[in-house]
Amino acid sequence: MVAGAETVVTMLPKGAHVLSVWGELITSAKAGTLLIDCSTIDVASARKAHELAAGANCLSLDAPVSGGTGGASAGTLTFMAGGSDDAFARAKPVLEAMGKKIVHCGGNGAGQAAKICNNMILGISMIGVCEAFALGEKLGLTHQALFDVASTSSGQCWSINTYCPVPGPVPTSPANNDYKPGFAAALMLKDLKLAQEAALAAGAATPLGAEAAQLFDLFDKQGHGGRDFSAIIEMLRG
Amino acid sequence: MVAGAETVVTMLPKGAHVLSVWGELITSAKAGTLLIDCSTIDVASARKAHELAAGANCLSLDAPVSGGTGGASAGTLTFMAGGSDDAFARAKPVLEAMGKKIVHCGGNGAGQAAKICNNMILGISMIGVCEAFALGEKLGLTHQALFDVASTSSGQCWSINTYCPVPGPVPTSPANNDYKPGFAAALMLKDLKLAQEAALAAGAATPLGAEAAQLFDLFDKQGHGGRDFSAIIEMLRG
Amino acid sequence: MVAGAETVVTMLPKGAHVLSVWGELITSAKAGTLLIDCSTIDVASARKAHELAAGANCLSLDAPVSGGTGGASAGTLTFMAGGSDDAFARAKPVLEAMGKKIVHCGGNGAGQAAKICNNMILGISMIGVCEAFALGEKLGLTHQALFDVASTSSGQCWSINTYCPVPGPVPTSPANNDYKPGFAAALMLKDLKLAQEAALAAGAATPLGAEAAQLFDLFDKQGHGGRDFSAIIEMLRG
Amino acid sequence: MVAGAETVVTMLPKGAHVLSVWGELITSAKAGTLLIDCSTIDVASARKAHELAAGANCLSLDAPVSGGTGGASAGTLTFMAGGSDDAFARAKPVLEAMGKKIVHCGGNGAGQAAKICNNMILGISMIGVCEAFALGEKLGLTHQALFDVASTSSGQCWSINTYCPVPGPVPTSPANNDYKPGFAAALMLKDLKLAQEAALAAGAATPLGAEAAQLFDLFDKQGHGGRDFSAIIEMLRG
Repeated sequence: MVAGAETVVTMLPKGAHVLSVWGELITSAKAGTLLIDCSTIDVASARKAHELAAGANCLSLDAPVSGGTGGASAGTLTFMAGGSDDAFARAKPVLEAMGKKIVHCGGNGAGQAAKICNNMILGISMIGVCEAFALGEKLGLTHQALFDVASTSSGQCWSINTYCPVPGPVPTSPANNDYKPGFAAALMLKDLKLAQEAALAAGAATPLGAEAAQLFDLFDKQGHGGRDFSAIIEMLRG
Repeated sequence: MVAGAETVVTMLPKGAHVLSVWGELITSAKAGTLLIDCSTIDVASARKAHELAAGANCLSLDAPVSGGTGGASAGTLTFMAGGSDDAFARAKPVLEAMGKKIVHCGGNGAGQAAKICNNMILGISMIGVCEAFALGEKLGLTHQALFDVASTSSGQCWSINTYCPVPGPVPTSPANNDYKPGFAAALMLKDLKLAQEAALAAGAATPLGAEAAQLFDLFDKQGHGGRDFSAIIEMLRG
Repeated sequence: MVAGAETVVTMLPKGAHVLSVWGELITSAKAGTLLIDCSTIDVASARKAHELAAGANCLSLDAPVSGGTGGASAGTLTFMAGGSDDAFARAKPVLEAMGKKIVHCGGNGAGQAAKICNNMILGISMIGVCEAFALGEKLGLTHQALFDVASTSSGQCWSINTYCPVPGPVPTSPANNDYKPGFAAALMLKDLKLAQEAALAAGAATPLGAEAAQLFDLFDKQGHGGRDFSAIIEMLRG
Repeated sequence: MVAGAETVVTMLPKGAHVLSVWGELITSAKAGTLLIDCSTIDVASARKAHELAAGANCLSLDAPVSGGTGGASAGTLTFMAGGSDDAFARAKPVLEAMGKKIVHCGGNGAGQAAKICNNMILGISMIGVCEAFALGEKLGLTHQALFDVASTSSGQCWSINTYCPVPGPVPTSPANNDYKPGFAAALMLKDLKLAQEAALAAGAATPLGAEAAQLFDLFDKQGHGGRDFSAIIEMLRG
């Protein structure tokens, strides 16, 4: 099936799966085939997959995607791509058919790196916003008042302005829909663990990223992995 | 001096100072005087100050300000106000002469509550952004690439879009000016400690807020309290 | 009732209670009366209580106690005392009637300081031991094997050697009795919060102490404050 | 050289080194040879090394060691061993020639698992003890007073009783020798990172272990990796 294809797109749960599938693909792919992996996997495996492709004279791109289920149905997905200029140029029209924004982040693995760095910011800022609402509640501050201040000043972030974790201020956020995802807590945990793996291997200090991973792990272990990640405010409240 | 004034504005370092000064003010202030405190202090002291004022039949407002030295010179300060509707209505024109945005956050102490909640989000998200850049560097991701992705997707926040902690992407950020504040790390530490005091007293769980306070404390103890708070990226890098 | 007493012992939940009761005591206590407070309260209030006593020419001692319900019934309580040499000398026989070990830790408040420092170590090391068992379980390591190694080498601590949080290795530990306290999680949370209050006021960096307080807060908010504090291993396991 | 040996002992920095060396060893080792690896490496690599040995009909044992430079010269090292009963029985006399205590912790990898669990407790409790001394200093509590209380009550642990991180109470501890190791901070960081890698892979929640790893990483990045790990108290003090 792959033998005649010019472009092959994979999307799999883990790095080991990608390496296994690409390992088979390259046995039948002709030289010059473009392999695009849209999985969210660890940076080290992504780089190994590029090496596999190069060994078979194939072009390759790591191109994880963000935007969640909402983005997929609305066509507003963002692809973060890592690989050569040639591979990116060839892949761009393919990815544009699926997503709204395609960013070339750098060489092999740069797409995965950008995704885990972005989602680490997201996981941290969401917990930060949830803590602020939980503290505000105890201090008698209404949700709307905190939203009005923070969303228009230095506390503004996607986690409050677009995806507010309490019902009311942002009607489209999962908090208004009983925390139905959206972006499931188990997926956020997966991305935060990928970030920690990369940080441990690369020697980067990420204290809040480490703690955010632990908190989503506790939340997941309480049985809430299938709910939207903004529901972690309930663990903070008790 | 205060005896004939209709409005008195105070701005002092700590709650004890405000209580001491207001304690003297009310001995000479006539009934109906409006007392506005623009200090950033603990919520408990702010509430006690309101009680002092009420006991002397004065109107009162807690109205801490945000925006830093840049906001002060540019006239873009935000005031977060707590107190009665009457006090807020009387104070609004006074505050509008000093700042661009005046938000009535609720009753006594709500201004202080809103400020520490907002700044807790800010302190957490800034460290999160710094960790993401420090991790990205180790993974070979350029600053511009991470900025391009995060500032336009779910990682977007004031700490990256407006105040980016690495030089380049946002030319006006302190990172481009050798981390001259801006908003000094010692002031961020002060606000994070106020948030922790309030959380301990009120019984709110704020794990990332607690850790952010500890990290800025370590940074301050290394002698960097006078630098912009975004310079904490250098502690993460070592 | 107090008027004729030579020694008065108080044991109350919070600093405010102690200050209120001692404030009344000194109005009727004759000069030279010895006031002993065995409460576990914040250091600042303990020092204020000493000042109250001194103002009435009374001797005073802060003398919080550790050892839990087991220690009380077995007569093995430890008292940590703060105050003058004279006060300690007068109090020693009184305290020896109640406890096994009486330590003079220093001047006013030193008893409270020693207790919160000790219990901060305890809270941290207990979570550390629980994490090690939880990790060991995932790695296929038996409880007994980890106990045999850690209790006899550099991992040894009261939390594993004497109060092991898994059933089996130490038959008398609460883990063998369905985590009936012992030392309730809510009381550990109280002490960790006192340590955080003192650290914030004194300017000490205590990153693990802060996190331990947050974790016991989450555990308490899940409704487990009445169980032994070693039951926090269940939150880690999920 | 190996071809005629009955027992081969390896001690190498990382899992990749062990797999590489054992991969060569088994090409020349005769069936029944006993391979003992005394490295401290990741659990996953240790298990793979056992598989390599089994494939060549060799016996194998993972047997990391603890006790530091002091233990090596004093002959008081502890070996934590993982592998079959046969392998352990054969290895025991060999290990007894090098160390004082030899513990069979379980099957393949159990030695590594026990070591990282033990050292995670150690790293956490050492920071906890350092935080307690740093807080006590700010509260006016002498080192000796805190030592006298904690070393004899529920705060007791190897980190205070045997290896006290402030000079004085335990004359043999590195604190009395300008923090010359002993057990270097960089090695503690290595073990804490191995624990985090194992926890991420196995799905264990270890919030204090994660934070301890981050703190030793910051300490190492400040250039202190070569000093004894108890010197981390200086980072807390600033």
